[in-house]
Amino acid sequence: MTEFELDWQREARIGIPEAVLCGSKSPAQIDAILDAADDRRLLLTRLDADKLSRLAARHRAALDHDPLSATAFHGAVEAPTLPGPCIVCAGTSDMPVVREAARTLAFSGRCSTVVADVGVAGLWRLMRRIDEIRAFPVVIAVAGMEGALFSVIAGLVAAPVIAVPVSVGYGVATGGTTALHSALASCATGITAVNIDNGFGAACAALRILNRMAASDAPG
Amino acid sequence: MTEFELDWQREARIGIPEAVLCGSKSPAQIDAILDAADDRRLLLTRLDADKLSRLAARHRAALDHDPLSATAFHGAVEAPTLPGPCIVCAGTSDMPVVREAARTLAFSGRCSTVVADVGVAGLWRLMRRIDEIRAFPVVIAVAGMEGALFSVIAGLVAAPVIAVPVSVGYGVATGGTTALHSALASCATGITAVNIDNGFGAACAALRILNRMAASDAPG
Amino acid sequence: MTEFELDWQREARIGIPEAVLCGSKSPAQIDAILDAADDRRLLLTRLDADKLSRLAARHRAALDHDPLSATAFHGAVEAPTLPGPCIVCAGTSDMPVVREAARTLAFSGRCSTVVADVGVAGLWRLMRRIDEIRAFPVVIAVAGMEGALFSVIAGLVAAPVIAVPVSVGYGVATGGTTALHSALASCATGITAVNIDNGFGAACAALRILNRMAASDAPG
Amino acid sequence: MTEFELDWQREARIGIPEAVLCGSKSPAQIDAILDAADDRRLLLTRLDADKLSRLAARHRAALDHDPLSATAFHGAVEAPTLPGPCIVCAGTSDMPVVREAARTLAFSGRCSTVVADVGVAGLWRLMRRIDEIRAFPVVIAVAGMEGALFSVIAGLVAAPVIAVPVSVGYGVATGGTTALHSALASCATGITAVNIDNGFGAACAALRILNRMAASDAPG
Amino acid sequence: MTEFELDWQREARIGIPEAVLCGSKSPAQIDAILDAADDRRLLLTRLDADKLSRLAARHRAALDHDPLSATAFHGAVEAPTLPGPCIVCAGTSDMPVVREAARTLAFSGRCSTVVADVGVAGLWRLMRRIDEIRAFPVVIAVAGMEGALFSVIAGLVAAPVIAVPVSVGYGVATGGTTALHSALASCATGITAVNIDNGFGAACAALRILNRMAASDAPG
Amino acid sequence: MTEFELDWQREARIGIPEAVLCGSKSPAQIDAILDAADDRRLLLTRLDADKLSRLAARHRAALDHDPLSATAFHGAVEAPTLPGPCIVCAGTSDMPVVREAARTLAFSGRCSTVVADVGVAGLWRLMRRIDEIRAFPVVIAVAGMEGALFSVIAGLVAAPVIAVPVSVGYGVATGGTTALHSALASCATGITAVNIDNGFGAACAALRILNRMAASDAPG
Amino acid sequence: MTEFELDWQREARIGIPEAVLCGSKSPAQIDAILDAADDRRLLLTRLDADKLSRLAARHRAALDHDPLSATAFHGAVEAPTLPGPCIVCAGTSDMPVVREAARTLAFSGRCSTVVADVGVAGLWRLMRRIDEIRAFPVVIAVAGMEGALFSVIAGLVAAPVIAVPVSVGYGVATGGTTALHSALASCATGITAVNIDNGFGAACAALRILNRMAASDAPG
Amino acid sequence: MTEFELDWQREARIGIPEAVLCGSKSPAQIDAILDAADDRRLLLTRLDADKLSRLAARHRAALDHDPLSATAFHGAVEAPTLPGPCIVCAGTSDMPVVREAARTLAFSGRCSTVVADVGVAGLWRLMRRIDEIRAFPVVIAVAGMEGALFSVIAGLVAAPVIAVPVSVGYGVATGGTTALHSALASCATGITAVNIDNGFGAACAALRILNRMAASDAPG
Repeated sequence: MTEFELDWQREARIGIPEAVLCGSKSPAQIDAILDAADDRRLLLTRLDADKLSRLAARHRAALDHDPLSATAFHGAVEAPTLPGPCIVCAGTSDMPVVREAARTLAFSGRCSTVVADVGVAGLWRLMRRIDEIRAFPVVIAVAGMEGALFSVIAGLVAAPVIAVPVSVGYGVATGGTTALHSALASCATGITAVNIDNGFGAACAALRILNRMAASDAPG
Repeated sequence: MTEFELDWQREARIGIPEAVLCGSKSPAQIDAILDAADDRRLLLTRLDADKLSRLAARHRAALDHDPLSATAFHGAVEAPTLPGPCIVCAGTSDMPVVREAARTLAFSGRCSTVVADVGVAGLWRLMRRIDEIRAFPVVIAVAGMEGALFSVIAGLVAAPVIAVPVSVGYGVATGGTTALHSALASCATGITAVNIDNGFGAACAALRILNRMAASDAPG
Repeated sequence: MTEFELDWQREARIGIPEAVLCGSKSPAQIDAILDAADDRRLLLTRLDADKLSRLAARHRAALDHDPLSATAFHGAVEAPTLPGPCIVCAGTSDMPVVREAARTLAFSGRCSTVVADVGVAGLWRLMRRIDEIRAFPVVIAVAGMEGALFSVIAGLVAAPVIAVPVSVGYGVATGGTTALHSALASCATGITAVNIDNGFGAACAALRILNRMAASDAPG
Repeated sequence: MTEFELDWQREARIGIPEAVLCGSKSPAQIDAILDAADDRRLLLTRLDADKLSRLAARHRAALDHDPLSATAFHGAVEAPTLPGPCIVCAGTSDMPVVREAARTLAFSGRCSTVVADVGVAGLWRLMRRIDEIRAFPVVIAVAGMEGALFSVIAGLVAAPVIAVPVSVGYGVATGGTTALHSALASCATGITAVNIDNGFGAACAALRILNRMAASDAPG
Repeated sequence: MTEFELDWQREARIGIPEAVLCGSKSPAQIDAILDAADDRRLLLTRLDADKLSRLAARHRAALDHDPLSATAFHGAVEAPTLPGPCIVCAGTSDMPVVREAARTLAFSGRCSTVVADVGVAGLWRLMRRIDEIRAFPVVIAVAGMEGALFSVIAGLVAAPVIAVPVSVGYGVATGGTTALHSALASCATGITAVNIDNGFGAACAALRILNRMAASDAPG
Repeated sequence: MTEFELDWQREARIGIPEAVLCGSKSPAQIDAILDAADDRRLLLTRLDADKLSRLAARHRAALDHDPLSATAFHGAVEAPTLPGPCIVCAGTSDMPVVREAARTLAFSGRCSTVVADVGVAGLWRLMRRIDEIRAFPVVIAVAGMEGALFSVIAGLVAAPVIAVPVSVGYGVATGGTTALHSALASCATGITAVNIDNGFGAACAALRILNRMAASDAPG
Repeated sequence: MTEFELDWQREARIGIPEAVLCGSKSPAQIDAILDAADDRRLLLTRLDADKLSRLAARHRAALDHDPLSATAFHGAVEAPTLPGPCIVCAGTSDMPVVREAARTLAFSGRCSTVVADVGVAGLWRLMRRIDEIRAFPVVIAVAGMEGALFSVIAGLVAAPVIAVPVSVGYGVATGGTTALHSALASCATGITAVNIDNGFGAACAALRILNRMAASDAPG
Repeated sequence: MTEFELDWQREARIGIPEAVLCGSKSPAQIDAILDAADDRRLLLTRLDADKLSRLAARHRAALDHDPLSATAFHGAVEAPTLPGPCIVCAGTSDMPVVREAARTLAFSGRCSTVVADVGVAGLWRLMRRIDEIRAFPVVIAVAGMEGALFSVIAGLVAAPVIAVPVSVGYGVATGGTTALHSALASCATGITAVNIDNGFGAACAALRILNRMAASDAPG
């Protein structure tokens, strides 16, 4: 009864490779999926070091695992060469999510540039780097707590801004809902948001945009 | 004390024209803003027919008002000619939000194509038109209730998908939170969301993408 | 003061056998219940491997325990022979709940057929098996995250559809409320829902329907 | 742009006729739908007397409207003759929802029997009629406030029990969430629930069961 | 800075002895409080076995600790002789809360009688003992999940009914809010509620009533 | 289908007369209930002046209606003579709820004494009257906003304290949840609470206590 | 029973004059309070034009009413001369709350300076005036939607910053909770918040600070 | 990619030194920050004993760590000499938050005086010390559960009152939202609040006030 069916057609259909969210899967289930994958490429997310250590040795050895982001590559992944987004974040605590996005992009061949620790409480840090940020085709903004970064960024750059709320903080910030709602209710126009802590999803949204830009014969 | 300062630099800075959210403004406040705008173009949203009727006669006459979407154009707006997104919606009740998005796009010179009434309860309706939808550079998906449309669409098209949850429905659907959460928690990857009922915001997000596509020398 | 009184009349009264929810009971309390049960049949749910290991040895040995679903049979249970529902699920992470439903049905002599990994993000997987699903008298649909599966299934099959939301996912999906609300707010008509992660309850609801079908002189 | 596409295939596909939820539609939108329906049968829900009065005269005259339930039949509907569920409710305030369920069943040719005012605060009222209720193939239980009726009923009858929470009450009962959660968290096994105030949905769920019973060659 | 000031006047002022909620206090803080108490009587709640084991040996030895309820008596407590309430509960999982109430009453010299496992899913269990329950001056009703017990009890007995919602259950029952809201929104009149899992508070409320009854020259 | 069945046995069974919550009932439904009541006494709550004006003239004339509390007496009610509770409230805005409690008590023959405007922001007002309040067998405390009154009162009086949270206030106080939670989470022991705005329920809870006090041969 | 007791000692005790929140009071209740006030000064808040028009003529004429803020002065109020805070706001929709704060300050003799329309979506507007804002002893920041203004301001000025969240906006911004949580979870340190829409409370908090500054012999 | 940029300009800009919230940072990240700080002063919060023990030995030895408050000073901190606030709390469980505030103040050279265990359930304890509290320029009030202390304090003292809700308690008090809402909805005017458990933030808010008082040439 543990049969499963991966969506190997996904990359061809929508340009995003199949990925496995490991958070709620047992090591045995992940082992079975990796066996079925055979030599096909697969991105694994939410695979923390502890769960990795409980996989079959043959899989442990074969995976390219990154502990900070809890992601792993199954199958050969070359160094990315295609242009990609700028990933901007408010603080050190956001780095696991930043890294999940960067790894997802790299798995699809896209570079990414991280601009870290530009929270709005010390606005001069962001302003110093804003021209650099403006040069990218897409911006992924990552922030927890009150998420004010989303509004400030979106008011300053013309590119698509994908907000990733992060579940850092305590009290009313617990779980990331405040940051999520800040992104959605922003007074700055044209921000879109993905789920809390969803660096993977933000990268996929960026891939959809970048793939279309690459494919397009320049609409408009 | 009723001074205000519009952000006339916005269009030059980020490619999105200044807009006025009229929902929580009094007719007198809106009149003052229109006076200040003089002959500059301005998009007004959440301006329903009742509030329109309470504006100064000179403004009432000059505005191009659309009752279904409660939007108005101040200043000359030519028929749109630039290519734009496909706007897909689940049912008739979503049309005010669909129309707010379409009008915002038109204000910036972008065409849009509406594919209505393709809710997933009768899946054949969506499948019949899916190839048509796949041809667009961006898809705006508009749905209330459980928002299953977002996941089905995003599983079938490669373009960026911007989800607009709508506050139709009753019981647990009241206010649109269920549809919003469905967009954010979707098993289909790479969906982004805007605030509930925010057709304007979805259009602005699409404009950011389309403007970049137009400007780009095809990254990647 | 640790007296208790099981509802042994339940099976005769409503066709569903007495069951013990072990999640919030101590091993000592469960031991006492099993002693009182004597040789009467009893279904135990939410009995994980750790708690099982802390039961009295005589009970540990006598129980037919399934770790994936955390269920156990006390007393003889023969292989099921009566027809039962199709259990459809969106992904591997849903299997503990799927299995809790299947085990509950088996305890009452009902077979069940599992159709796994048919999430709507890769719609072709579901469409390939839809005719098979349509042949069953009842469908139990199990899904977490945004629960779009419920609407798609209910739009395609005529049988009663019992939705079981699952608490997998993170961010706004945490705890399963999004999937629950999607089932309740579905645009597809006639879905009913049980509590989050309640595979047992879904099976009991299916038993009520199947028992009545078996008993009926075909109403209507 | 006001195009729409009704799902006329629904009745053939899943045995439930197409219906129009009028709550969030304008009179003009409803008029257009009725014109498109031509002489096909259509059930309208959430059509209150005020909105009815704003429809085109030709439609107003042709509809069979029931003010208590805010439902209307478009097209000929004969008196129901097929057996149907028992609808049990806790009090007078639940009658609009009870009636919405009964009208939906009648539209599909199903009779229904209402047992009203059997709230558990005066348990003798329910006990006096419990044998009568037990005779039905399906029970729809309708209750607001704390929804204790759901548990008491489901502990006493063997038939499928479909709970409809109602948004009557104040304070913590406001909006019906307490009653909904009581249905879902019930200690009585095998209850299923539909959305708050969704008499229509409960009737559709009952239709799915009754249709299958009628069609079945008695499984099990 | 770890000074504190117990309210030793409480018993004289309102008839309820000073108690210490240990859940959020460190072992060192509890040790300091016990030292300060000297030979005065003190009731400790939420003192689980693990925290007990980390207290100073002299305190560990002197306390009369009950693991099920996580309560402890400091100082001599004689066997209760005064009449007290009936404590009714729905299932075995409620026993820790039941016991916290009983121990609090015993600390103040009040007897209590427990009627367990009378959940409404098997109504005959409650009906068999209802006359016994009716004889008590006060009823404390303890229930988790949907809390239907509160309404059924309050509809059958004339005594004051104090509802204690319990945080057992999963999904929408998690944390006990559903049971709490059921008590507050009950269709049965005159129920009052205390906080979730607050067996101590229910006992104190009962003490207020019983003390007044004892003191009164029979009002009315 | 508008049949109903009042619980005329309630007063004999639990000492609280049958009452009709008019908030969600139509004038026609209330008229039918009053006709059925014939010459039996009935308390009506949530019957505001507007709904009263839409009742049949014969009922309008016969009812003893109080607009502030929106209550009405059907049938002869003599001036109360039995001793009753003290009703303490924080401010003028709480008076409708205070009055609903007082009217309910009066309907059952109980006097009540109101001590108004003793909110804790001006503590001297409460302290000046605390000895007077201490003399009553039961205290009903009525407060909205943050409900600090509940804790202060319960720390000062030995009688049973029944808290009634009120839905006055704005922002986080909207709907009364903050006051309700303050009553439940109070650091003062032995407070019990009823639903928000439920002056009727608080009075019924007081009746249960007072009736038992009157009946008792002084337990303890 | 409509007795009340104003806290005339408040101004002497804590430096803030007695005020009357009119939102949940009837015109009759307000008339009675004004009669009792006699010639003492009183600030009335949440007194909209409609309720004002229903007061007794003698009160209507005597009050100094401001419709935008829905405040009124009872008794003579001279033009303010004492220095006060800067009130900064994000947009025109915030002006009723801004004005409620300014009027409360004026009632106590304090001037205030309003800097409007400096929302962070057009950051240049705020930066242009930041030096001016820095000169004030206290800053009151007023913002709805996502409340990013709070963080940006608090990162730039050294003065105490009192955040007033405003209930403008729709979707997740509805009711002002997002703005409130942004103030509380801000990455900028030392912000404090008052209730949503509570311009009056922010002014009182500023008064507490300003009064102490005036009284102090310069601590530190 | 683990670069970061501390805001060393903060103290000069707004008078509050840079601080590091360690709760969501890894030991490696904290080590890197401390290395970068070099010999500059830095306040670390939410650094519990376990995480401290996993820092590099050179940092462990150099930090002045306080386990109760989980704070640490990096760099030389002299004993405070400047006058500061009174910190009032309701009970022993609030001491970690009290201490976080006191340590933050000490880091900036400010003294603080703690008045503990003055919860309103035993009002005499607070009243005995109220004159002492009134002498301070600022009051920080720390309370969990229902937070009634905030209102009572603010009604009695004229100084600025900064409320810090604490996440102690269970049931509806879980997480501290009830105490937070009590502070915001208080009937006592002019209270401001910081985030739940945010002793650090309350101290920073007090610093803003005290710094301004010290700097001011007595406004008003």
